[in-house]
Amino acid sequence: MKTKKIVILGAGYGGLMTATRLQKAIGVNEAEIVLVNKNDYHYETTWLHEASAGTLHHDRVRYDIRSVIDSHKVGFIQDSVVEVKTSEKLVILENGEISYDYLVIALGGESETFGIQGLKEYAFSISNVNSARQIRGHIEYQFATYQTEVEKKDERLTIVVGGAGFTGIEFLGELANRIPELCKEYDVDFQKVRLICVEAAPTALPGFDPELVSYAVSHLEKKGVEFKIGTAIKECTPDGIIVAKGENETEEIKAGTVVWAAGVRGNAVIEKSGIEAMRGRVKVQPDLRAPGHDDIFVIGDSSLVINEEINRPYPPTAQIAMQQGEIVAKNLVSLIRNNPHLETFKPDIKGTVCSLGEDDAIGVVYGKKLVGTKASIMKKVIDNRALLMIGGPSLVLKKGKFKLL
Amino acid sequence: MKTKKIVILGAGYGGLMTATRLQKAIGVNEAEIVLVNKNDYHYETTWLHEASAGTLHHDRVRYDIRSVIDSHKVGFIQDSVVEVKTSEKLVILENGEISYDYLVIALGGESETFGIQGLKEYAFSISNVNSARQIRGHIEYQFATYQTEVEKKDERLTIVVGGAGFTGIEFLGELANRIPELCKEYDVDFQKVRLICVEAAPTALPGFDPELVSYAVSHLEKKGVEFKIGTAIKECTPDGIIVAKGENETEEIKAGTVVWAAGVRGNAVIEKSGIEAMRGRVKVQPDLRAPGHDDIFVIGDSSLVINEEINRPYPPTAQIAMQQGEIVAKNLVSLIRNNPHLETFKPDIKGTVCSLGEDDAIGVVYGKKLVGTKASIMKKVIDNRALLMIGGPSLVLKKGKFKLL
Repeated sequence: MKTKKIVILGAGYGGLMTATRLQKAIGVNEAEIVLVNKNDYHYETTWLHEASAGTLHHDRVRYDIRSVIDSHKVGFIQDSVVEVKTSEKLVILENGEISYDYLVIALGGESETFGIQGLKEYAFSISNVNSARQIRGHIEYQFATYQTEVEKKDERLTIVVGGAGFTGIEFLGELANRIPELCKEYDVDFQKVRLICVEAAPTALPGFDPELVSYAVSHLEKKGVEFKIGTAIKECTPDGIIVAKGENETEEIKAGTVVWAAGVRGNAVIEKSGIEAMRGRVKVQPDLRAPGHDDIFVIGDSSLVINEEINRPYPPTAQIAMQQGEIVAKNLVSLIRNNPHLETFKPDIKGTVCSLGEDDAIGVVYGKKLVGTKASIMKKVIDNRALLMIGGPSLVLKKGKFKLL
Repeated sequence: MKTKKIVILGAGYGGLMTATRLQKAIGVNEAEIVLVNKNDYHYETTWLHEASAGTLHHDRVRYDIRSVIDSHKVGFIQDSVVEVKTSEKLVILENGEISYDYLVIALGGESETFGIQGLKEYAFSISNVNSARQIRGHIEYQFATYQTEVEKKDERLTIVVGGAGFTGIEFLGELANRIPELCKEYDVDFQKVRLICVEAAPTALPGFDPELVSYAVSHLEKKGVEFKIGTAIKECTPDGIIVAKGENETEEIKAGTVVWAAGVRGNAVIEKSGIEAMRGRVKVQPDLRAPGHDDIFVIGDSSLVINEEINRPYPPTAQIAMQQGEIVAKNLVSLIRNNPHLETFKPDIKGTVCSLGEDDAIGVVYGKKLVGTKASIMKKVIDNRALLMIGGPSLVLKKGKFKLL
């Protein structure tokens, strides 16, 4: 009997967890495992807002994939996925193709712009190491340019963050800490800088405990963030954004930098491959396989899992992606060992902490509400936990966050 | 008898040397001295190429003016000079005006674009702390953006330096050292980067010893610089430059960054004030006063002093500006003490060293040719000497260059 070939697409939280759990669980000759990823590094998506604001160097948010995979058991291909030809059990890559017996699609999400004009062209999004580095560079360049111009354009110093969800709020927290440093670095008057958060929903951090939300908003406001809640962005232009104002009116907010942090959809490869999905997200079966595709697992931001208590999808998080990776690894072991019993995925939400910068946060951990330093320490513990689960203690020592207080 | 009022415009090498020598030479009540400068800091013009390349932080190239002037003897006004009304003995500032009995114009030079189209709009110039910081930021932003684009634009990684004079060559030396660091920082392939120097004259560093010039060019070429000598820039565009090729043809060189480092003219205030000048530079009398204005001294980049040995003007340098400042301070003391004898300025060229980066240089010092490490050490000694002459040993300790080897 031919050795089965397992192909894992993507080395984010879900894909890398699948690969590292799988390499522990099976013997060298039990299956052929191939991991495909665009870069030769994994990055911490949940830390990208720090690299984008410039409060953490981007090399601190990534590590070499080869440092956590066992090359005797897992082959690595650095390439981009173009499409999956499901009927031929074939993955088309930019520079080749690869066949599979079992496929894990863990390609991550993409920014969802909800059809708002100009966002793709003129707004940045906190998507990966490259874009984070670019946002940091762009903001610095605006500050650097301000003082060179005879006629000062104050809008250069305005940063609009679209979305007061998790990413938006965490990015604002970092920016609020970074701005005073930038002002000093570039001889800019702090009073000239504006940090504006625009959110269409009637509240910041929808779904979060209202008491915690109010803590977050007031603490960020004290650091200079202006919130425009219940305000929809109508259009993004080279000069800033246009927002709705009342019934029929609009207002222009000029801004040198617009960062869109308000939506995640599934990966375009899903739809291109003809796998049934809603906004690119596959409503997976309890064992995390795609409906109608018993050889394909979908996990992470491209998967959709319903929280039956409230009959709404769980928000895509690193926590869920990693837990899915663990289950998929187990289920793949079962499949290659011809064990018909596959495990069912059930998220175990230990807690959610939203950072408000280096020194402040809000969160719910094991049902307990936390704010300030305590929450901030918990956030770093959670960040380190992801490293521990994928790369073990040595990775925590190399890339962990230890400035706890 | 009313106390005489001496106004010094500009706190560059010449102006600050005048002020610091003057405050040592005269008593508190002998004259009123006022120093006017746009910024509250002095910057080392001759180090700006390092800040522009990103090899030295811009805070290392500047220091607080108040740290070197004696506030009991010299008043400081932070403002920009608009015009001098010579007949009224009045200086018009952006936010006020100030009368004088004796005036020292030490406002520095401006970039000379020789009427080349587009240079003002699309090229950067290494003029001051603000522009240096912007050049550094711009280049970093090009590297940061490169990796975010699906279709790679290699021209983002092309830097054109217009001019192979002193500033152009020193900037190229720093860039050649900085580029490998930038490639690492932004995951960019070194082979994709181009550093191009375009010079209209038939040689790099015209006026320098040919043997030293050839050392400089070959050492920079080894580090990846491409020289286009005897090539005139015809136009600068948003996409790069257009150069002459043969008799009637032109060639486009696409480049994300164009830095113009090829010419200095006098300050626009000179011409605006109706003082006789050539390209904004005043051919001063032997005692450094402007012809026809016995109450106005002009020093530094806005002054023109002929080297009678070769019947050509001395190139404007920090060395000459500082020596002029010393003479002007002496002559001002004579004038306020009603001593009719004014000293004559005679440049004492101790040496000229052109840096090729942190670790390499060429130069002639006391008539001796130097290359490599020896020249590089001499360069730093010269840099420290400027600090010593203006601010004494404490300034050298604070801002000096000590990484001699």
